Amino acid sequence: MTDPRPVIRLRPKTDPRRIRRGAPWVYENEAVTDRRTKALPPGTIARLEDAERRPIATVAVNPNSKIIARVLDLDPEAVIDEGWLAARLRAALDLREMLFDAPFYRLIHAEGDGMPGVVIDRFGDTAVLQPNAAWADVLTDTLTAALIDVTGVTTVIKNASGRARALEGLDDVSTVLAGGVAGPIPVPMNGATYLADVEGGQKTGLFYDQRPNHAFVARLAKGTDVLDVFSHVGGFALAALAGGARSALSVDGSAPALELARGGADLTGAGDRFETLQSDAFDALTALAEEGRQFGTVICDPPAFAPAKPALDAGLRAYEKVARLSAPLVAPGGTLTLCSCSHAADLTQFRQASLRGIGRAGRTAQLIRTGFAGPDHPQHAHLAETGYLKALTFRLLP
Amino acid sequence: MTDPRPVIRLRPKTDPRRIRRGAPWVYENEAVTDRRTKALPPGTIARLEDAERRPIATVAVNPNSKIIARVLDLDPEAVIDEGWLAARLRAALDLREMLFDAPFYRLIHAEGDGMPGVVIDRFGDTAVLQPNAAWADVLTDTLTAALIDVTGVTTVIKNASGRARALEGLDDVSTVLAGGVAGPIPVPMNGATYLADVEGGQKTGLFYDQRPNHAFVARLAKGTDVLDVFSHVGGFALAALAGGARSALSVDGSAPALELARGGADLTGAGDRFETLQSDAFDALTALAEEGRQFGTVICDPPAFAPAKPALDAGLRAYEKVARLSAPLVAPGGTLTLCSCSHAADLTQFRQASLRGIGRAGRTAQLIRTGFAGPDHPQHAHLAETGYLKALTFRLLP
Repeated sequence: MTDPRPVIRLRPKTDPRRIRRGAPWVYENEAVTDRRTKALPPGTIARLEDAERRPIATVAVNPNSKIIARVLDLDPEAVIDEGWLAARLRAALDLREMLFDAPFYRLIHAEGDGMPGVVIDRFGDTAVLQPNAAWADVLTDTLTAALIDVTGVTTVIKNASGRARALEGLDDVSTVLAGGVAGPIPVPMNGATYLADVEGGQKTGLFYDQRPNHAFVARLAKGTDVLDVFSHVGGFALAALAGGARSALSVDGSAPALELARGGADLTGAGDRFETLQSDAFDALTALAEEGRQFGTVICDPPAFAPAKPALDAGLRAYEKVARLSAPLVAPGGTLTLCSCSHAADLTQFRQASLRGIGRAGRTAQLIRTGFAGPDHPQHAHLAETGYLKALTFRLLP
Repeated sequence: MTDPRPVIRLRPKTDPRRIRRGAPWVYENEAVTDRRTKALPPGTIARLEDAERRPIATVAVNPNSKIIARVLDLDPEAVIDEGWLAARLRAALDLREMLFDAPFYRLIHAEGDGMPGVVIDRFGDTAVLQPNAAWADVLTDTLTAALIDVTGVTTVIKNASGRARALEGLDDVSTVLAGGVAGPIPVPMNGATYLADVEGGQKTGLFYDQRPNHAFVARLAKGTDVLDVFSHVGGFALAALAGGARSALSVDGSAPALELARGGADLTGAGDRFETLQSDAFDALTALAEEGRQFGTVICDPPAFAPAKPALDAGLRAYEKVARLSAPLVAPGGTLTLCSCSHAADLTQFRQASLRGIGRAGRTAQLIRTGFAGPDHPQHAHLAETGYLKALTFRLLP
């Protein structure tokens, strides 16, 4: 045989048109899973065929995953080598260069950038790679070479902390793939400077997805006192300070995160207007209310309370509680921005939970903006929905 | 009797808690509609009571409308006079002054600003008032006085072209209520200057709702050739030119609208990079494709194809057609922004129709942004949804 490429075949009942039109995933129950398929090593590049053996696409197979095949290319003969990876990276880079003046952004947003399961965040000369699907884990070295070639970064860090890796049967060992970093990296964004701990931080050290929501809130925050709860490294607080907020108080449970926020505030030239409070967020909200404190701008950007369906009800109750406890802290006519990064809670459910909480606090709200993740987080056409990240800005009437 | 205020009473089966929690409307079938109620003149201010005669709210009654009562104030004894109107206007003005540097915005967005059925757009010293509910039509003179007092505008124009007025049994006679205007008003927005024909134009002469979507597209359009279809007075085109687009072509069926766009382009200092084409939009899209023209930035912002439920299917087909005809005009790696201002087509339906059209044109898209109306179009807590205006920006892959 001259074609050593393994084949994975759709079941007779599976309509191949979904894939031909661009759907990115083949589920386990859509493909023939015989002993030969099951024996393929995770990450194997294969040819997808329909039940009549007509080739459809080049896919990456993982027999251990519910998503048994991920479409890499609708050309069934595509060669997934450094050149192929470089072309995808270059297309992604073109978009970011249209969008941003400085090289700080999410460079690859998985399926949305045609690289299933791969996330790459860029911090100037450093890139943090999350190969969260088996094919990319197998090709890590080739991907690293392509990344350095296309972008000119000198340091590449592999972050293996993503939850998706376990579903793919991958380890959680993070490493430095190229170069090296010494300490947190300063990141310019919305006029502020943040510090990203790309080695020790959560995920890739800094969340770029809130960028447009930071910018909107920063504009509203001019001249006000800001309370940023679940602040992490100071996402909303530092943008607000750069935008002219009178003061900002960051609340977070993590001392290292607040340390980075403090360093960022100093680099932003706003250290004298910035305070931090290391505390459980719910405790802090309650304590601030007991002190009678009020702020013109309040933001709550908690971790995902409803990451998956089973946690939905409890998650929505938690979002309602955040709204109920934070609304009393908003000065009359001030704004309250509530965020959710829960996949399971959709926009309508999250908005309703938030409005219920505000109502139970006895406040009346206008909804002035609904925001999502920024444009360096593009969505694949067949996976487009309102997205995991929702940021609602309410104005609370006097 | 010392209380001459008429009463409107909820039916025994109607739960008064909905209103007490802030719902803004009482439907015809929720209230007792006896002969006395039916005889109330449209716009009558009344006290809303529950079935046990407990007062709930101050409402405006219109026995001719399906919305028989609109809640003005949860205080059942509120006096709806110039002072009351001024307080609402002031609260609305405070928000706009937080948001914008110059006095050009939607000042009152009906229920979202606590003034049911009332729309006021501000163009510097001129305001355009749409009293689209009977109570506001009755109180037009008082409202005009409050508006002048709170904002300092010198000219107030009444625009009676809104479709909602017919449902309220109101006439369509527009008038000048105070001052006067001589010709179109220059409006600074997103770095461009637009011309608003506040007397002869559509609705209030200029659409402020697209402002954040204009800004996003303008950023992407830098250095590209722009095609703005259904351009009206040049909304997207002029912002793009101000943002550094190489050229812009505005297509619209209306010669007067294109005339204003031309004037705006000249005032923006970009007249030499601007062209107009008076044509049916579908014809123009077809003709440009036949010529093999391509643009780095394409925008289609059509009128509402699905304003109400009965038009939904035809409307979605029209949105798909717009996407199918415009996608071939997008250069490889360029962007396509598709907008819908249809109430009946929700975000998911509109996105799916758009993606179907792009797919039928043989193009592959990333969705890079979902935008809505700007923050000077706040939503009432109980009416919040994804909203009538949707702007989707896709990037079409090479």
